[in-house]
Amino acid sequence: MDRIIIAKIGGKVLNDKNLLGEFMEQFSRVSERKILVHGGGKVASDIAESMGVEVKMVDGRRITDRDTLNVVTMVYAGLLNKRVVAQLQGMGCNAAGFTGADANIILSERRPIKDIDYGYVGDVVNVNDKTLTALLSDGITPVIAPLTHDGKGTNLNTNADTMASVVAQAMAKHFRSELIYCFEMPGVLESVEDNDSVIRHLDYQRYEQLRTTGAIASGMIPKLDTGFGALDNGVSDVKICHANALASVIENDTTIRYTELQRQV
Amino acid sequence: MDRIIIAKIGGKVLNDKNLLGEFMEQFSRVSERKILVHGGGKVASDIAESMGVEVKMVDGRRITDRDTLNVVTMVYAGLLNKRVVAQLQGMGCNAAGFTGADANIILSERRPIKDIDYGYVGDVVNVNDKTLTALLSDGITPVIAPLTHDGKGTNLNTNADTMASVVAQAMAKHFRSELIYCFEMPGVLESVEDNDSVIRHLDYQRYEQLRTTGAIASGMIPKLDTGFGALDNGVSDVKICHANALASVIENDTTIRYTELQRQV
Repeated sequence: MDRIIIAKIGGKVLNDKNLLGEFMEQFSRVSERKILVHGGGKVASDIAESMGVEVKMVDGRRITDRDTLNVVTMVYAGLLNKRVVAQLQGMGCNAAGFTGADANIILSERRPIKDIDYGYVGDVVNVNDKTLTALLSDGITPVIAPLTHDGKGTNLNTNADTMASVVAQAMAKHFRSELIYCFEMPGVLESVEDNDSVIRHLDYQRYEQLRTTGAIASGMIPKLDTGFGALDNGVSDVKICHANALASVIENDTTIRYTELQRQV
Repeated sequence: MDRIIIAKIGGKVLNDKNLLGEFMEQFSRVSERKILVHGGGKVASDIAESMGVEVKMVDGRRITDRDTLNVVTMVYAGLLNKRVVAQLQGMGCNAAGFTGADANIILSERRPIKDIDYGYVGDVVNVNDKTLTALLSDGITPVIAPLTHDGKGTNLNTNADTMASVVAQAMAKHFRSELIYCFEMPGVLESVEDNDSVIRHLDYQRYEQLRTTGAIASGMIPKLDTGFGALDNGVSDVKICHANALASVIENDTTIRYTELQRQV
């Protein structure tokens, strides 16, 4: 079965010009079918601030009111997405940017209000694998920004780790789908202060233990939750690595440190 | 030969919620192959101002420095493009947003510095008709924002009227290409103060006369220059109409006022 690589980069990689350049250089040279999913994060907060739009957080989660939706649409789909697309094009990769609304590739529904109203936040309900495979067949490398749409005219903010996971799951119907979360650390660490403590193989049981002890926290949790979700839904491999290690990880170079998620046995 | 409609809307239509809604409703129902090209204009200036980015104009033309390029990339490719795409999707039209960089659909080169350095402004050098026709065959309606790229990693600001014209010219290789500039007036006016003075048929000679007398000025000039350029390069029809008259103009409803450009005889 043909391989497809779904790579995901977050806000810290996007903000680090050198690391982003190194990542894109490696990504552009990947000879397999490939899709890039990117986050946004800090850039959106900075621009919101410069425009006088208040960043509202509840329990560490951004509340997406109408003004915030406008800012993240500008920053994710405009500034960041087109910068990455133009640079990949400059490296010979035929990138094209998408949000969920574009060609209806990712449909979501606005998150129901329970204790908290998250505002314009979408939970994914469908990935349009038919259109994505048609685009790949046209020789296009989709570069997906973390926005979806409700199919009724409204864009919605959606977590980029989740989007990478659901795209990888949809691609698993057609290809050997490999999901790689790339970030600014060498993998999931046993001890947050020690970059040498990369966990090579991580199963769900061990993840739950480490989350209970607090060794795994904050930004790692969505990556691992959505990563294990992908593994349970047809995705062949889920790996977590430094953004400068993408090429090595794709080549299964075992001299490089990274974390691979393991199915329950 | 199959028809294709290339419709263009500018900043004033984008800023008028009711007119934009009416236009999109009509556009979404066009049964022919279709492409939408949109401008940006005033929204970008407003957002630049709110961010403290100075809008620099020389002889009525915007100078695109690095900060301005970032703002127009956010506003054109992000805010405006994705709003239009999501709304068209909500109307059942399978829209997908593109800038020139996306799938390399429009390549440009940075305008050489003569008397004025316009900054990050691109003059079109190639339209990728092969990719555009592949997208149309996939059932996608491209919605194109007024940005191109230099193929070396940089996005460039490009006039939306020009983009509509070159896209229509490229589509003329494959289809009966019809270019329709939609705006907030019923057509080209003989007398700017009189909405009833729509010129039904306008040839280049008459255009030059009216430009000399000042009857045609400012924003009409790029529309007409690029419109006659399209007519000289394979485009079958070039029409200029009110954004609420799109459907009638496509159906050649002669009870509706609009302007049609005419070839020299």
